[in-house]
This record gives sequence, C-alpha cells and structure tokens, in this order.
Amino acid sequence: MSELQPLIDDLVAANHILYHHGVVDGYGHASIRHPERPERFLIAAAIAPGRVRASDILELDLDGNPVDDAGRPLYSERFIHAEVYRARADVNAVIHSHSPTVIPFGVTDVPLRPIINQASCLHSGVPVYNSRLVPEAKGPLVDSPVLGKALVAKLAEHSVVLMRGHGNTVVAPDLREAVARAIYTERNAHLLLQTLALNRPIEYLDPSEVESKNTNRRNAPSHGVDRIWQMWLDEVSG
Amino acid sequence: MSELQPLIDDLVAANHILYHHGVVDGYGHASIRHPERPERFLIAAAIAPGRVRASDILELDLDGNPVDDAGRPLYSERFIHAEVYRARADVNAVIHSHSPTVIPFGVTDVPLRPIINQASCLHSGVPVYNSRLVPEAKGPLVDSPVLGKALVAKLAEHSVVLMRGHGNTVVAPDLREAVARAIYTERNAHLLLQTLALNRPIEYLDPSEVESKNTNRRNAPSHGVDRIWQMWLDEVSG
Amino acid sequence: MSELQPLIDDLVAANHILYHHGVVDGYGHASIRHPERPERFLIAAAIAPGRVRASDILELDLDGNPVDDAGRPLYSERFIHAEVYRARADVNAVIHSHSPTVIPFGVTDVPLRPIINQASCLHSGVPVYNSRLVPEAKGPLVDSPVLGKALVAKLAEHSVVLMRGHGNTVVAPDLREAVARAIYTERNAHLLLQTLALNRPIEYLDPSEVESKNTNRRNAPSHGVDRIWQMWLDEVSG
Amino acid sequence: MSELQPLIDDLVAANHILYHHGVVDGYGHASIRHPERPERFLIAAAIAPGRVRASDILELDLDGNPVDDAGRPLYSERFIHAEVYRARADVNAVIHSHSPTVIPFGVTDVPLRPIINQASCLHSGVPVYNSRLVPEAKGPLVDSPVLGKALVAKLAEHSVVLMRGHGNTVVAPDLREAVARAIYTERNAHLLLQTLALNRPIEYLDPSEVESKNTNRRNAPSHGVDRIWQMWLDEVSG
Repeated sequence: MSELQPLIDDLVAANHILYHHGVVDGYGHASIRHPERPERFLIAAAIAPGRVRASDILELDLDGNPVDDAGRPLYSERFIHAEVYRARADVNAVIHSHSPTVIPFGVTDVPLRPIINQASCLHSGVPVYNSRLVPEAKGPLVDSPVLGKALVAKLAEHSVVLMRGHGNTVVAPDLREAVARAIYTERNAHLLLQTLALNRPIEYLDPSEVESKNTNRRNAPSHGVDRIWQMWLDEVSG
Repeated sequence: MSELQPLIDDLVAANHILYHHGVVDGYGHASIRHPERPERFLIAAAIAPGRVRASDILELDLDGNPVDDAGRPLYSERFIHAEVYRARADVNAVIHSHSPTVIPFGVTDVPLRPIINQASCLHSGVPVYNSRLVPEAKGPLVDSPVLGKALVAKLAEHSVVLMRGHGNTVVAPDLREAVARAIYTERNAHLLLQTLALNRPIEYLDPSEVESKNTNRRNAPSHGVDRIWQMWLDEVSG
Repeated sequence: MSELQPLIDDLVAANHILYHHGVVDGYGHASIRHPERPERFLIAAAIAPGRVRASDILELDLDGNPVDDAGRPLYSERFIHAEVYRARADVNAVIHSHSPTVIPFGVTDVPLRPIINQASCLHSGVPVYNSRLVPEAKGPLVDSPVLGKALVAKLAEHSVVLMRGHGNTVVAPDLREAVARAIYTERNAHLLLQTLALNRPIEYLDPSEVESKNTNRRNAPSHGVDRIWQMWLDEVSG
Repeated sequence: MSELQPLIDDLVAANHILYHHGVVDGYGHASIRHPERPERFLIAAAIAPGRVRASDILELDLDGNPVDDAGRPLYSERFIHAEVYRARADVNAVIHSHSPTVIPFGVTDVPLRPIINQASCLHSGVPVYNSRLVPEAKGPLVDSPVLGKALVAKLAEHSVVLMRGHGNTVVAPDLREAVARAIYTERNAHLLLQTLALNRPIEYLDPSEVESKNTNRRNAPSHGVDRIWQMWLDEVSG
C-alpha cells in the first residue's frame, strides 16, 4: 500500500482542510477513486473529518462494501461516493459536506449561480436533490445504493448537487480541485446571499469567461489550486 | 461519588463545548438529572460555563436547594432546571443558554422552524416564553420556582422554548443529545435568517422525514451524536 | 502608586478584553476616574488597546494634560474622557470605541434600541453625535475640549452615544460595567440588524423590565458582571 | 540589498497582515515601488501571501520581467502592479486582493461609498473594472500589459478599483497606508451592506470631512496608521 501513501496523505489533509474552513463539521466525508482499480475508492471509516488519520482510510468497492473488512464502522452515506464513481468516469474525487451556506439555496427556488471566478465550477448549473420527491427515501440521508443512484441522476453532468435541508455533494477530476470547489462553493453562496439582499440586477459569471481558457495554468505548480493547496496544508499542519 | 465521575466529566465537557461554539458566553448553564435519584440534578455552582471544573458540580433538589450546602453561590435561574425535571420524566438533561441567533425569533412573531436535518428537534414547534406576560415576573430572569413553572408550561412537550430578549432552554433524554440540539438550534436559526431574507417560499423539514426512522442509528457508536461528540471533545481538550 | 495597582490592572485587562471581542481594533481607548482625585483620570498613552501594559497608564487632568509629563504621545481624542468626567459625577469609567456594528445606526435614522436583557443600558435612548452638525468640528475626531463638550451635550444623561461614521462612547459607574455595556451594545446592534431584516413588529426591552430590580445582584460576587468578567480575564490571560 | 531590508520586512509583514485579516486568501499580492529605481518594484514570487518570506521577494521591471531571473514562478497578474507604477507617480505601494465583501459592489450597480472615517480613501469614487467589457480580456485575470493598462485606465486618479467577480486593487503613497486602505475597504463594504439592508437614507462620509485636515497627524508616530500597524505586526508575529 506504500505507493498509495501520498494519495492517502492528501486525503487526510483534505479532511482536515474542509473541517478547518467550516465546510464540514462532525459530519461529511471525502473520497478518492483508487488510482489503479477504478471500481474501488478510498474513504475514512465513520469518524468526524477533523479527526481522520491515515490509518482510518479504508478501501471500498462500488457497492459500498469494504474490501478488507477490518470491522471499522462505515459512513452510512458512503453510497454517494460509490454511485458517483460508478456513473462518472471523469470523476476521481467526491466530497459530501454540510456546507452551511448552501442551505438557503436548497430549501427555496433561488438558484446558486457563480459570481466569483473561483466558483466557475457552478457555471453549468447546480441542481437540487430533494429527498421528499424520491419514493425510496425515508429522510434526507442517502444511505443506500438506490438513493445514491437517485442523487447521481440529479447531479447529472454537473460538478455540484445541493441536497435540500442537508448539504451538498461536490465532484472533480482530482482531490485538490474537489476541495477547492467545495470551499469556493461555500464562499460563493455567502457572497451571493449578500448580493441578492441588494435587490439589484446581478452580473453573474458568464460561460464565456469560465476558466477553460486558463486550464493549462490551473494545475501548474505555484498557480491555481496548487498555490492555495500549499497554504491550506500549512493551516492544518502542526 | 466515583460512579458519577463519567457523567460529571461529560457535564464539564458540555459546558466547555457550549462555550466553544458560542451558544453560551459567560452566562447560561447545563445540567443532568441524577441517574439514581430522579428528584435531584447536577449543575455547576454560579460560574461561567467555560470555567467550570468537576469540583464545581453540585447536587440540587427540585426546589433548587443544594443537597450538601458547600457555601457555593448558585445560579439564580436554577429553577429552570428543577421545574423541567419535575414536570418532564422523559428529560434527563437541560441547557439554558443565551444562544444569540434565537433572539430575532423571540422578539418578533416569526416562528423558528427547522430547515436542516440536525435541527429536527424543532419540528413539533418552538414556543416563546415572554416574561412580560407572566404576572409574577419582574423581568426576563427565571429566578423562582413559580417562574420556572411558567416557563415549563410554555415548553410543554417540546424540546426547545425561546425566552424573549434572553435566550432559550433546550431539553433532551440525555446530555449529548441536549448539546447537539442546542448547537444545531443556533445553526438552524442562523441559516433560517439567511433564507428568510430571500423572500421566497421555504420548504421546511417535514414531520414525515424527522429522524424517528433513524433513531436506532442516532446513538450507535460512531454515528449520530456520538461521532460529533468525539470531535467536540477534541476541540475543547488541551 | 501601589494602592492604584489593582485598578490599573483592571484597566489594562479592559483594554485587552475590548480588543479580544472586536469592540476596539487599533483605535479606541478606555479610562477610569482617579479614585481619590475626581478631577483626574487614568488612561493609556497613545497605543493600540491590545498592546497596553501597566507602564503605559498615565494620569491626566480634565483639560487633557498629563499630570506628570513623561513625554509619551497622548490620544488625540482624550477630551472625550475629560469632558465626560467633568460633566457626569455619576461616571467613573469611559470607553471610546470603533464598535463596528453600531455604524449602521449612526449613519441612518434607525434608532439603536435594546432587544436583549444585557443591553438594558440602552433603554433610555441612544443619541447620535454627528460631527457635521458641530460648527467647530473639522471632521469626525473629537480632538479638543470644545468638541468633547459637544459630544457630552449629546450624551446627556444616557449611557451610550453613537458617533456618526466613527463609533461610540460608553460610560458607567465602574469599569467592569463599562466593558459589559460596550460589549453588549455591539452584540445588541448585531442582533437588532438581524431582527430588523425580518420586517415584522419588534418587542423591545420594556423600561418596566430594566434591571433596576436586579441591581443588588448585578455586582454580587459570582453574579452579573462579576461572573463574566472572570471569564473575560481568562480569555486574555496567558 | 541590505538597505532594502526594512522595506522588504515590511512587505513580508504586509502579506501576512492581509492574510490574517482575510483580505487575501491563497491569492492576491502586495508590492512596493523600488525606493531608488522608480521603474522597478518589489513583489513576491508566485506563492500564497501568508507563506511569503523575505527570500521570496523579487525585483521586477515595469514590463513585469524579473531583473535577476532566479527561475522563480511569477504571479500571472503582476502586470497590475507594473502598469500602476508606470502610470501613477504618486503611488509607491499596490495591493491586489480577493477582498470578499467588495464582490457584491462589483457585480451590481450599487456604488461602494465610504461610511466610516477610516475608509476616506473611497471618497473620490470607486470605479469597477469589468473584464467582459475589455475586448482583449479572455476572462477576469489581468495577466498581460494591455489588461494592466485597461485596469489602470479604470482606476484613473482613485485609490481603489473593484474588479467584477474577482476582487480589487488598492494603491497608496506608501505600503502601510495601502494595507490600511485594503483592510478598511473590506470593513466599510461589510458595514455598508448591513446599512443598505435598513432601506433608509444614508449619510455617507462627506468630502468636506475627509482626512485632509488631519494629514499631518496620520503618519505621526503613535497616531493614524503607525499605531495600528504596530498592532498588526504583533498579530502576525510569533
């Protein structure tokens, strides 16, 4: 498992960073697709994100079963991750959070649209998963494969799906991008609430200015997500 | 008293956790019913919650008198706790707080209703105790048995009662659940204010989706309140 | 000067507490009337409140001149304190702050009224000092005796006067009460803004329920301001 | 380079202070004009402001090229600084930030006007740079000399220019003043949003009361920016 160690270290750091920034509290979870076995993913046992250590990371299959049953309790909503990885070959990292400020956009019909450059992942639209409209759901929790599939159907090809009265799920091609999307989705939601209160027309981020043209630089060392990831690591270290 | 020690440790931690999360400042108090003598309860002497140590925990009877008069000053509002324990056999933990964001819901007619899953304890309704309508009250403080009874009459069978211009009182079957209810009541109030500002119809948590169906899991190790309690302990330790 | 030491220690702590709670940033100042020479007051040299040490405390007369000219720079707005002590024999402590959330109430006609019990000092009314209406003023700063007198005329018999586009001045019979009033004025302003956004009738604190009836207890050990002062001391110690 | 050391130390501190106050996160940058070679400026290599050390400070010319190519990655938006220094001889310090609360004023037509004395730098007006109206811009980033010139044309003679969906750029005669302007622009934006929500006429800072009359004192030791700078240094030290 040693070649996985850098990825596991990043996954542990991602848990701590999301907690430090208030995107998760005691709940929520982050995962990555296994780099060599695409029908597997890595996720912590059922503990609060801020307390996750490398030894807590488990390998699960796409039915949500642990590959090596170590007797650890599992997140009841691990099916969110499993079903995203099953349906979306472009996704290698998934975050389910209780990002607080997305709540107003999940319990009303006001769309969460991007007004800052860093939240360009929202430009294609942010659907809302409402468990009350899902016959199989007994409540907000996505705690079975069928509910995971219902959430993924709502997510469709987007990067973020809100979960009414609950939080959201954020997906990305890699873990650091997923963390950035989760943090800036929360930030954008906060700023959008402030902006909406002004009751004036809003100039949202336009599809034409979405970062596609800057893709090359986004993952270059010292630029884009790489630069801020180094800061986030500092914030949660020692 | 040694068999009480784990309960006392939890009560001390609860005080620190509520302070850490801003639900109490220098005022407010938490108590538990005595596990063997249901007509007694454990509560700190009159000091700020963030400063409570195990040696500050006193045993009081339901008239608010200390069983063993150690000469410590007592909270003038200890009658809140006494009268809840007298009237509600289902309650084993009580928190009185100055939870800031419940204030707007106590001084207006806007009801505090749940929009997040963690605040499902609000689903049956959140009454408001208005001391101006209580003939015996000289002000907002609930500092006598008769005022304690008036507050409990308003609380009725609910989990939370707001206290106009003052704060709230939260009750639960056990202490950790009471702490969770207090923290998520504050969180829900904050998110509801943000949501109300959007001036759009709101889909509140529906009684049908309240956590009853998940009850078994709520107190399972590593799930529900247990998971987040471990994080809260970490936050206030060392 | 040794009999003054406990008072000076409290004054230093008050500076740090106000900074810790965001009531002052790098500006603002706190003072106490000299306990034996009522025409003198104690205040720091011109440094940021969070950095004040006991050796920075100076004795000034009511013209704002240092009794013992140690060559230290002086706050240009020390005349606020001097003129309050000259006019108000009931006042023994003064705080001038840039309390952020009082600003909206100083630049509009919306009155700052109390909605929480701890802000009962606001019940008699909160006047606004507008420097543009003061012929001698060249700007918002109260940096001369004549401007100090204009501010005090606006303060009249109240506990708090807002200063448009600038902050406020808070007075009290003793220093700990002044700190509590300053902190809860900020808190009340924040909660009132949230409440006003609901656009519903508000039940403000009523004069009949103001703390007068509780006066005896307010300064009893372990109650009222004494209890929270001990917590505030902990927060700024070590 | 040793005579530059105090300036470099200030520049490093400015980066940390802006990060500590949330004006920058992982992005944004601060620079100073070279004191002896006005066609050069000092700015960090491409790393997050909170992580900048003295050894990261580079010297660039007004085309954005490093004088001594140490192979360090450069901020892609360094042209903001270069073009300001080229056009504005009165400016010796520039800050580009993602100051969060200016966003609502950049994506709507609501002007950012000063309501607090410390934000008097806004009194002449705060223009908005909208990259969608700049033919050469592919997106919000100001990552070429031509875009830097477009931003500077919008800035004109003012102290602050907002950048729609992105942040702002703040200029000043010296670095400490620039930091103060950046921090109080964020503070003023926050307080103005709260004030606008009251829906009442607002009395803004009047040109007649702008600090010009206090200019002498603003940079005196222990007064104005000097006083608060010492506190900011304390906050980011050790």
